[in-house]
Amino acid sequence: MSHTSTQIQLVSRPHGWPTPDDFRTATVEYGDLAPGQVRVRNEFISVDPYMRGRMIDTRSYIPPFRLDETMTGGAVGRVVETTVDELPVGTLVSHQYGWRDIVQEDAAGFRALPEPPAGASSSVYLGVLGMTGLTAYVGLLTIAKMAPGDTVFVSGAAGAVGTAVGQIAHLKGAKRVIGSAGSAEKVALLTDRYGFDAAFDYKDGPVRKQLREAAPDGIDVYFDNVGGDHLEAALDSFNDGGRAALCGAIAQYNATSRTPGPSNMANIITRGLTLTGFTIGHYFDQAADFNREMGAWFADGEVVHDETVVDGIENSVDAFLGLMRGANTGKMVVRIN
Amino acid sequence: MSHTSTQIQLVSRPHGWPTPDDFRTATVEYGDLAPGQVRVRNEFISVDPYMRGRMIDTRSYIPPFRLDETMTGGAVGRVVETTVDELPVGTLVSHQYGWRDIVQEDAAGFRALPEPPAGASSSVYLGVLGMTGLTAYVGLLTIAKMAPGDTVFVSGAAGAVGTAVGQIAHLKGAKRVIGSAGSAEKVALLTDRYGFDAAFDYKDGPVRKQLREAAPDGIDVYFDNVGGDHLEAALDSFNDGGRAALCGAIAQYNATSRTPGPSNMANIITRGLTLTGFTIGHYFDQAADFNREMGAWFADGEVVHDETVVDGIENSVDAFLGLMRGANTGKMVVRIN
Repeated sequence: MSHTSTQIQLVSRPHGWPTPDDFRTATVEYGDLAPGQVRVRNEFISVDPYMRGRMIDTRSYIPPFRLDETMTGGAVGRVVETTVDELPVGTLVSHQYGWRDIVQEDAAGFRALPEPPAGASSSVYLGVLGMTGLTAYVGLLTIAKMAPGDTVFVSGAAGAVGTAVGQIAHLKGAKRVIGSAGSAEKVALLTDRYGFDAAFDYKDGPVRKQLREAAPDGIDVYFDNVGGDHLEAALDSFNDGGRAALCGAIAQYNATSRTPGPSNMANIITRGLTLTGFTIGHYFDQAADFNREMGAWFADGEVVHDETVVDGIENSVDAFLGLMRGANTGKMVVRIN
Repeated sequence: MSHTSTQIQLVSRPHGWPTPDDFRTATVEYGDLAPGQVRVRNEFISVDPYMRGRMIDTRSYIPPFRLDETMTGGAVGRVVETTVDELPVGTLVSHQYGWRDIVQEDAAGFRALPEPPAGASSSVYLGVLGMTGLTAYVGLLTIAKMAPGDTVFVSGAAGAVGTAVGQIAHLKGAKRVIGSAGSAEKVALLTDRYGFDAAFDYKDGPVRKQLREAAPDGIDVYFDNVGGDHLEAALDSFNDGGRAALCGAIAQYNATSRTPGPSNMANIITRGLTLTGFTIGHYFDQAADFNREMGAWFADGEVVHDETVVDGIENSVDAFLGLMRGANTGKMVVRIN
């Protein structure tokens, strides 16, 4: 008996902004389970900015997507058929077989999850209780070494990682947390809902000037999701000994030529700054600490988690393109109906 | 009775390359010693690239030189008259009252030194056994965290700090040490005298290409004295987890406009790199370790120390301007006759 899966494949490597023509929806037939395999029906799949990097063929920490093959990425789903005792039917699992509705693979590729906390759907494991939250936690605390009393600046702060960074910063004793976002609505959410002390719309004027006004006493930590003029502004506002965690550079992801770096790199020397790039795959050893702390914060209502949900596997390319444009607040996920 | 001192003062803040007109030679008369003071006759004064930064009026880790006042900087000299028992006449001292032949100040501003090792002059305390050596040692080991087996790239490698970095790297177990310099003579010295495994003249072609050829397996550590295209080349050649110590950016010191940063900053994220700027003033707590290790290496002949010596306080501006142009190999000092 065969099982039909709808999957999204990359058919051409985007130059500049990706378009729907770079992808296709394919129908894949799975046969019966081989020993050791499980079949999982995805509930939510994740679209993330880093996936843009995997669409081009370049040296990176993670291999590029292959053309004419189904893309991969974070997802949560439920076991619907199984050959292994450890993953009985009905088990909620997280895994990297995103961009499809049904997946059938060796059990080793899946990790069993507890049921989500009351009031949350399983998508929380793609967001604040998943890789997104871990990225915020590791970047802020391990990479940028935020300490109580620090002033923290977060770019792209209304995104999934950014909203988590801002909240963790306050929970860990930051003195002042400042965020940038790309619309007045997002800026309002940053202060009203996510507890940022100040926020600005980077489209309203030079980031350098807006950051200086929002952080008249300078910043100690910068969590960078954007790069470009945001990084340059941070270098300008850093106090001595400042630390930047470089997590993303969405401003550059769709650039068609190399864009110059900040013109004020000399500040790194004169102010004794540290810039550290990271990708979360190297920091899974911190997942236990993260799960304990973030799980407690979330259960106690100290961290809010928002999502932008797009329905239907057939709309996942639109969800990804929307993410690139900043159409989301919080975590962008695709719900598999 | 008065004592005449010849001193170099800054009279205008250079825009672009400094010229002799930005300085003047002044005659300063000191009176008799006040209680607690000593009078020191300098033997050597130091000219260093960082002094260019002090000639402009900008926020930095160290205040700018004041116009129409004598500049300061590292120097070694001997006590010629004293009011304190701790610093008897004849004591060799290091201090920050450079750019003059005679200085008269409170004893607290001077640090007594042992006589230099056999065969060395007191200028060694401005070089490999002084701030220069400490800068190399801290930058390579503490800031860039060089580990045995690392491949190390040093820019401006024929300078005072660079020659020390290359030698310390090998003494600490580097697998391969690569240096750049600005002439064929310097390149030959790097490999023949200072033990670099490979070296290239940055004027011979794109640094990026030359570094790739010199480090086909990539680099783990970069010690940056130059900035600009050298930093960009390093970002291109870094292996995952690479570390850069940003010590200087002589390529930019005389720029008259902000120069763009590296166009490949995204590598910091994808390769998990760390860039840390530093100025040695924050790391004097490591002087004891440094003095012990470097003192032993120097005494055993495991570290060579070269100088470019300019004679006469009246030629110290020329010495500084020569340093800016790369006229020196090793430490540039002015000998006070």
